[in-house]
Amino acid sequence: MNGAESLVRTLVASGVDTCFANPGTSEMHFVAALDRVPGMRSVLGLFEGVVTGAADGYARMTKKPAATLMHCGPGLANGLSLLHNASRARVPIVNIVGDQATYHAPFDPPLSTDTEGLARPSSVWVRRVTRTETLGADAAAAVQAARRPPSGIATLILPSDVSWNEGGAVGAALPVPQPSKVSADAIHNVARTLASREPALMLINGEAASKDGLTLAYRIAAATGVRLAAPTFNTRLARGRGRYPLERVPYVVDVATAKYADIKHLILVGAGEPVTFFAYPGKPSFSTPRDAKLHVLARPEDDHIDALARLADELNCPDVVLPEGPRPVLASGPLTPDSAAETLAALLPTHAIMVDEGITLRDPFFNATANAPPHDWLGNIGGAIGGGLPLSTGAAIAEPKRRVITITGDGSAMYAVQALWTQAREQLDVTTIILSNRKYAVLYRELEGVGATPGPTVKDLFGLDRPALDWVAMAKGMGVEAARADTLERLTDLLRKSFSMPGPFLIEIPFE
Amino acid sequence: MNGAESLVRTLVASGVDTCFANPGTSEMHFVAALDRVPGMRSVLGLFEGVVTGAADGYARMTKKPAATLMHCGPGLANGLSLLHNASRARVPIVNIVGDQATYHAPFDPPLSTDTEGLARPSSVWVRRVTRTETLGADAAAAVQAARRPPSGIATLILPSDVSWNEGGAVGAALPVPQPSKVSADAIHNVARTLASREPALMLINGEAASKDGLTLAYRIAAATGVRLAAPTFNTRLARGRGRYPLERVPYVVDVATAKYADIKHLILVGAGEPVTFFAYPGKPSFSTPRDAKLHVLARPEDDHIDALARLADELNCPDVVLPEGPRPVLASGPLTPDSAAETLAALLPTHAIMVDEGITLRDPFFNATANAPPHDWLGNIGGAIGGGLPLSTGAAIAEPKRRVITITGDGSAMYAVQALWTQAREQLDVTTIILSNRKYAVLYRELEGVGATPGPTVKDLFGLDRPALDWVAMAKGMGVEAARADTLERLTDLLRKSFSMPGPFLIEIPFE
Repeated sequence: MNGAESLVRTLVASGVDTCFANPGTSEMHFVAALDRVPGMRSVLGLFEGVVTGAADGYARMTKKPAATLMHCGPGLANGLSLLHNASRARVPIVNIVGDQATYHAPFDPPLSTDTEGLARPSSVWVRRVTRTETLGADAAAAVQAARRPPSGIATLILPSDVSWNEGGAVGAALPVPQPSKVSADAIHNVARTLASREPALMLINGEAASKDGLTLAYRIAAATGVRLAAPTFNTRLARGRGRYPLERVPYVVDVATAKYADIKHLILVGAGEPVTFFAYPGKPSFSTPRDAKLHVLARPEDDHIDALARLADELNCPDVVLPEGPRPVLASGPLTPDSAAETLAALLPTHAIMVDEGITLRDPFFNATANAPPHDWLGNIGGAIGGGLPLSTGAAIAEPKRRVITITGDGSAMYAVQALWTQAREQLDVTTIILSNRKYAVLYRELEGVGATPGPTVKDLFGLDRPALDWVAMAKGMGVEAARADTLERLTDLLRKSFSMPGPFLIEIPFE
Repeated sequence: MNGAESLVRTLVASGVDTCFANPGTSEMHFVAALDRVPGMRSVLGLFEGVVTGAADGYARMTKKPAATLMHCGPGLANGLSLLHNASRARVPIVNIVGDQATYHAPFDPPLSTDTEGLARPSSVWVRRVTRTETLGADAAAAVQAARRPPSGIATLILPSDVSWNEGGAVGAALPVPQPSKVSADAIHNVARTLASREPALMLINGEAASKDGLTLAYRIAAATGVRLAAPTFNTRLARGRGRYPLERVPYVVDVATAKYADIKHLILVGAGEPVTFFAYPGKPSFSTPRDAKLHVLARPEDDHIDALARLADELNCPDVVLPEGPRPVLASGPLTPDSAAETLAALLPTHAIMVDEGITLRDPFFNATANAPPHDWLGNIGGAIGGGLPLSTGAAIAEPKRRVITITGDGSAMYAVQALWTQAREQLDVTTIILSNRKYAVLYRELEGVGATPGPTVKDLFGLDRPALDWVAMAKGMGVEAARADTLERLTDLLRKSFSMPGPFLIEIPFE
C-alpha cells in the first residue's frame, strides 16, 4: 500500500469521511487513492477559500472534522483567511497540504515556500510527514489533535514522495479527547457572585450556546437576574422557538459600552472577553467595563453543559418555562431590510441553518428570526470577510435534509464567490440572499468610527456601483438559478419557490 | 499631519503613484489621506488576490513599485499566493497591511493573527511601524528595499493608531540602488567556456530577456554556438519581430532532459537552475544534466545587459542581423488551439502585452506569436495558479496605450475571477481569452507523470463540466462585455472587435 492509500484509509478509520479539495500535482496519489478506498466523499472547490470555509461550515454542524486537500504553500495561502475564521470558531479540521517531494524541496522549485510558517498562525498542530511508514500514524494523530477540546486545525504537510512510496500502514484511530469538567471552585465562585445579585453579564459561546445550554443559562438567569449574551459574532447559536433568545453584544462600541455600563461581574462560559473588533480613537477596547470583575465559569475546552448544570443545581434554580413570543408574519409595504427580514422569518423552514455574513444589514435578520421556527445561526467569528458562501456550502454538505440560508452583503459575497459553483455541482439546498447595497457600507460606518470624513477617493474606494454587480448573471454563470427581488411580493414568491425546490437558489435584493 | 498622510506623501515623493487596494477599518485614515494628497491613483479590487496580482503586473511593466493596501493578516492572506508569484518574479511592491492599533493588538481581537509570519515567506523586507514619527522614514525605507536589485516585496505593517496619530513627517526619498556589475572573472570564465565550443546552454531571465539583452545574447550565440533558452516560466520576455525568438525550457521533464541531454555547460544570466516544477517517481529534478558544469554569468541582482555586452566584446562577437520569419496569417478550418493561436498571432496589435496563464494550452500561443508584431510576454513564474486576470489588470493600469491579452484556462481563471470587475471599472484595454476545456487538464497530464491512473473520483475532481461555467454570463455579471467563439470565423470577428474598441472584452473558446 502506498502512503496516500494509508492516509485515506486512516482518515476513514478515524471517522473522517468528507474531503473538500482543490488538488494539484503533488496530491495526485491522494486523489488516485480516493478511487481505491470506499467511504470518503470528495467535494471540489474552484478556489481554496471554498475548501477551507466549507470545512468550517461542515465542522460547525457535525462537530467532527472534514479533511481538506490543497496544493503546496500557495494553495494553502488561498485558504488561509477562512482557516483563520475556522480557528477562531474553534472547529476541528484535518488540513492536508500536499507539497514537494522530500528530495526535490531543497532545490527550491517555483511553488516552494514556507508551508509550515503559513499554516502555523491558524493551526493548533502542524506536522510535515517525512516517511511513508509513519504517515498513517501521523494522520491518526492529526485527527486526534483536531478533535482535542476545544477543537482546532491540524495541518498535515504531505510531500509527494511520502504519498507515492510503498510501505504505508493504516494508523489506528486514537481516542477522541473529551472536554474537561470545571473545578468545584469555579462553580462555587460564580454561584457566590450570582447570589450577591450585583449586576452581572454571562457571555455564552460553544456548547453553552446549544439548545440545552441556553435552557440551563435561562434557568440560572431567571433565578439570579444575571444578564445573558452571545459574543458579537458566534460559532453556532441555537435560535428560534423553544430556545432562549440570546442577545448579541453590539458591534458598535459606544452602543455596547452604554448597554453594559453598570456591569460589575463578567462571567465567561466558553467565550472570551468582549474585546472590540477594532480600536477607535479615544474609545475603549472592551464592551464591558474594565473594572468589572472577571470570572471564568468554563473555558472553551471545558464541558460547558456540565458547568451550567452544576451551577444551576448549586443555586437551586427552579425549572422555568420559556415564554413564547409571537410567531413572525409576512411583512407588507416597501422592500426594506426590516420587511425582508420579517418575511424571511415568516417563511423560514424548520431547522434551517442561517449563515450570517450580512455585515451592516445583519441585525434586522437576527432580530426578526427570534421567534421563527427552530434554527441554527452561524456567524463570522474571525472577522475575515467572505466566508459566508463557503460556510453555507459545508453546512449543506453536513446536513443534507436542512435548508441553508446565507445572508450576505454584495461586497462580502465576492471574496469567495466560487462557492456558488460547488453548490450547483452538489445540488445543495442553499438559498443565498444577496443584500446588494453596491458599496462597502461597513467602511462608511467605520470611517465615522475613526473620525475621518469621506472625500471623492473614499467614496470611490467604498463604492461597488461602477459597474454594479449583476448577481443573477454571475450565479447563472456558475449554474445556480437566480432572480432579483425588487419588491417585497417578489421576494416572498422567490423565497417560497426556493424553499419548495431542491438545490441552490440565489436572490439578489437591491437596497440603498 | 497624521501618520497616514505622512505615509501617502512619502510614497508619492518616492515615486510610488499607484495603489491597488482592498481596504478595511484599520486602513480608514490611509484612505482618507488619499483625498488630501494629490498624485496617488487608487484602484479597487474586490479580492486581495486582485490587488497583489495587479501590483505584480504593474511592476513587470513599469519596473517600479505600486503600493498595495490590505486589511490585517487575513486580508494579506488572501493576497499571499499571488505575492508568492510576484516574489518569484522578483518585482518591486510596497505591500502595506493595516493592522490593529498598537494598544489594542495585545487583547487578541478577532482579526488578529501573525501578520509578520504570513508576510515573511514572500517578502524581502518586513517592518511593523510602531511610532507615527518614524512612519515616513519607514515608508521611504520600504520603497528602497523593494527596489534593491533584484527587487522584491517590502511589507509595511501599519497599526491603525500609528496611522491616525498626529506627528507624522514626510520621509525623504532614498536613493534607488543600482544593479551591480559582474566581475571580470565571471566574464572571462564564461568567455573561455564558450570559446571551447563544448555544448552549452545559456538560460536567460530578467533584463537579459529584454530586446537589448536578446540582441546581445543572439550575437554571442551566433558567434559561439551557445544555445539560448528562457526558463519554463518567465517574468517578462521581449518577443515578436525584431526580437530573438527565445525558446522556453519544456515543462515536461522527459522532453526537457532529452532536449538538453548533450549539454556540458549551463550558463545562467539572471536565471536560476532549471529545476523542474515537481518531482516525479524515478525522474530527475533538473531539466539539464547534473554533470553539466554550472557557470553564473550574472545573478538576478546583477546588471545583465552590461554582463552580456562585456561578454560579447571579450569574444569579439560580430554584429548580426536577425533573420525575419514569415508574418503570421489568419488560420482557416476548424477551431483548435493551434488555429486560434495562429489567428490571434495574425491579428495581434503592435506592442501588445501577452499574459500567459494558458497551462496545458500555452505552447500553441507562444509558438504562433514568434513572428507577430513586437510584444511582451508575462508568465506565471511562481506557479500559483490564478494570477492571469490580476496580472493583466495591473499591466493595463501601467500601460494604458497598449492592448493586454490574457490567455487563460477556465480552471485557472476562476481563482481570482473578481479581477474582471476591476477591468470594467477602470475600462482597461484587456482582452481575456478563456480556453475552456471544462477540466483541470493539467492534472490529467500530471497524473500520468506520477504514474497513477484515473478512476471515477479522479475524473470527478478534475472535471469542471458539472455544471459547465458560463463565462459570458459571469463576465457580464461583472460588467465586462463578452461573447463565445464556437468557430474560427467567430473568433476572428470577436478579436477584431475587441482590438478595435476601448475597454475590456472576454472571449470564451470551448475546446475539448
